[in-house]
Amino acid sequence: MAVKPATRTQAISPFYVMDVLHRAKQQEAMGRDVIHMEIGEPDFPTPQPIIDAGIRLLQTGEVKYTPAAGLPELRAKIASFYQQRYGISVAANRIFVTPGASGAFLLALGASLNAGETLLMADPCYPCNSNFVSLFDGNTQAIAVDASTHYQLTASLIKQHWTASTKGVLVASPSNPTGTLIAPDELKQVIQAASSLGGCFYSDEIYHGLVYGQDATSALAYSDDVFVINSFSKYFGMTGWRVGWLVVPEAFIEVAEKLAQNIFIATATQSQYAALAAFDGETLLELERRRTEFAARRDFLYGHLLRLGFDIPVKPEGAFYIYAGCTRHTEDSFQFALDFLAAEGVAVTPGKDFGHHQAQHSLRFAYTTSMDKMAEAMQRLERFINRR
Amino acid sequence: MAVKPATRTQAISPFYVMDVLHRAKQQEAMGRDVIHMEIGEPDFPTPQPIIDAGIRLLQTGEVKYTPAAGLPELRAKIASFYQQRYGISVAANRIFVTPGASGAFLLALGASLNAGETLLMADPCYPCNSNFVSLFDGNTQAIAVDASTHYQLTASLIKQHWTASTKGVLVASPSNPTGTLIAPDELKQVIQAASSLGGCFYSDEIYHGLVYGQDATSALAYSDDVFVINSFSKYFGMTGWRVGWLVVPEAFIEVAEKLAQNIFIATATQSQYAALAAFDGETLLELERRRTEFAARRDFLYGHLLRLGFDIPVKPEGAFYIYAGCTRHTEDSFQFALDFLAAEGVAVTPGKDFGHHQAQHSLRFAYTTSMDKMAEAMQRLERFINRR
Repeated sequence: MAVKPATRTQAISPFYVMDVLHRAKQQEAMGRDVIHMEIGEPDFPTPQPIIDAGIRLLQTGEVKYTPAAGLPELRAKIASFYQQRYGISVAANRIFVTPGASGAFLLALGASLNAGETLLMADPCYPCNSNFVSLFDGNTQAIAVDASTHYQLTASLIKQHWTASTKGVLVASPSNPTGTLIAPDELKQVIQAASSLGGCFYSDEIYHGLVYGQDATSALAYSDDVFVINSFSKYFGMTGWRVGWLVVPEAFIEVAEKLAQNIFIATATQSQYAALAAFDGETLLELERRRTEFAARRDFLYGHLLRLGFDIPVKPEGAFYIYAGCTRHTEDSFQFALDFLAAEGVAVTPGKDFGHHQAQHSLRFAYTTSMDKMAEAMQRLERFINRR
Repeated sequence: MAVKPATRTQAISPFYVMDVLHRAKQQEAMGRDVIHMEIGEPDFPTPQPIIDAGIRLLQTGEVKYTPAAGLPELRAKIASFYQQRYGISVAANRIFVTPGASGAFLLALGASLNAGETLLMADPCYPCNSNFVSLFDGNTQAIAVDASTHYQLTASLIKQHWTASTKGVLVASPSNPTGTLIAPDELKQVIQAASSLGGCFYSDEIYHGLVYGQDATSALAYSDDVFVINSFSKYFGMTGWRVGWLVVPEAFIEVAEKLAQNIFIATATQSQYAALAAFDGETLLELERRRTEFAARRDFLYGHLLRLGFDIPVKPEGAFYIYAGCTRHTEDSFQFALDFLAAEGVAVTPGKDFGHHQAQHSLRFAYTTSMDKMAEAMQRLERFINRR
């Protein structure tokens, strides 16, 4: 075919970590024991009550389409969860069940972003977020953030970077890769700034629940006119099931319904039935046990990375990542990641996957693996650094 | 929020049948026995070997992300299926497992269609197909087709409607709503026409397997430089699982990989493991039994609709739909559908869901329900017509 890929695809970056992952798999195929600290997927299995609910649905054989917006019972349970955990009232008809947070982004941006419009995001930031903007032929204005704002945007930064083509702002808290939270008052002010400038506000809350100290605040606490992206993948341990949700402003309900019918038909039925058990008392108890374990892992990894000379100016408060400055060891974090993997069999994610700001001086370590393996990884890291 | 929905959403039509479905559910809530002939979902459960494979995966608890392009074993099995059923060689790395055919359309058009470009499609046609074009800010040129071409596009129609903004052609065979197939030689010529004009060819093959007489021909028989959309939903009985696939030209492999990573992460894991059993001998035997049943239903419904004065100039050869002209009974098929439902409790889909050409003179009857229920529906239809 003489036909070329669509122009937008040039703006969509691949994940550099895939190169790391590919090499890691090659090593494993040759029998090497690789420690994975590069992937954003916890080592825990899906909680048993969720598994059981999925199996019960499959046993009926009736795995039929659900309504496009999701099972009414699941939408109602998510609404109740907002009430119970956040004390926020959200009408269930504003909640759309989606194929993961990926589907929620597709729906939110497909419904609201015109070609040529710009979204403001922090740099560093999770790469898919800006790639979704590119998918709809929009642009991302990546705003460099640092420790002084906990690697989060501020109302002042928003106002400073707002232009005629700006459509809105995306905030991700806890942040991937930095694990840092936006302060509640700053979140409120950012939402107000976007609103006063006539823009949209998108809140990526997929790491909510995975916080180790203060709670994460939902954008819904401050406004009903926001898009909130969330997921059962991370806190609820349902990565492979591909089920998440989007909360839309009331004015977008009809449009989101129409889009969901067309671009998904519906989210996988057995995943939705399984997710009904995500809010069970037994499930939540297990998730809290895991959260305690993640907090311990965070403390362990944080301590070791500091000891080994990495810079972590803000102690991460959520998600399962530490974004560590590595200027004492290298000026090229991608090469460092490849060399570390080759020499010691430990995979980490290079900063260039998350933007440009200080990217070559940063590495993301995921504490999605056991304490034993992390201890081994830290020994290997120490040996690697000392040999350089 | 003062912010309006994105412009593209104005071009995306809702499904009018949802209005029918909504009223049908209201009737059912009041205890009425409604016969559903409006939905594109068979009444058969998912075949047992597929269910069992899904349960086995869930029992491991390890429902983790798969590679973005899909489980390597599943891609290999799909490639083998092309060899066995069609005698066509397709490299497994050209096959992307997607969240249903919906995901396949997203991937194909996201990878190839620029904003402002036009795709040629038949009218009538399944509405999502042109709505995906609108999602990427493209345009659809709907070409009226009739019985003379089996409601399919021809090379001559393609050449006649091609303009500077035309990006390519979409053919759906068997067609939804007409159930008609494109002749193999015509398919070949349409592909050649698109290619000689420098355009893309997209083949919607989601009803392959559900054919009652001649086999459906894959576009891959004539060219490797085509996008082929397929699904486990219809023939394989996996609607609610949301798993399908896309075959891309070799030149699009890298772009499709990058897009899939970003817009899906991956397709639901348990659905992919379940689909591994879709090609088992036992499953295929069961699917062939169902195909025989569908053929009998088609014959039954075809005979009755003709007897009741509906026009069906081409006997449908595939899918599970009959698109029937209703000018002897009404000049407004949407109102007819609503009145028929209100009076007799039978739901059918109005023609306006499938385009403009003769839409108000057409109704789609789905034979996705049992022979007994269809017999009852035909009695109700006869009574309804005779009372008008």
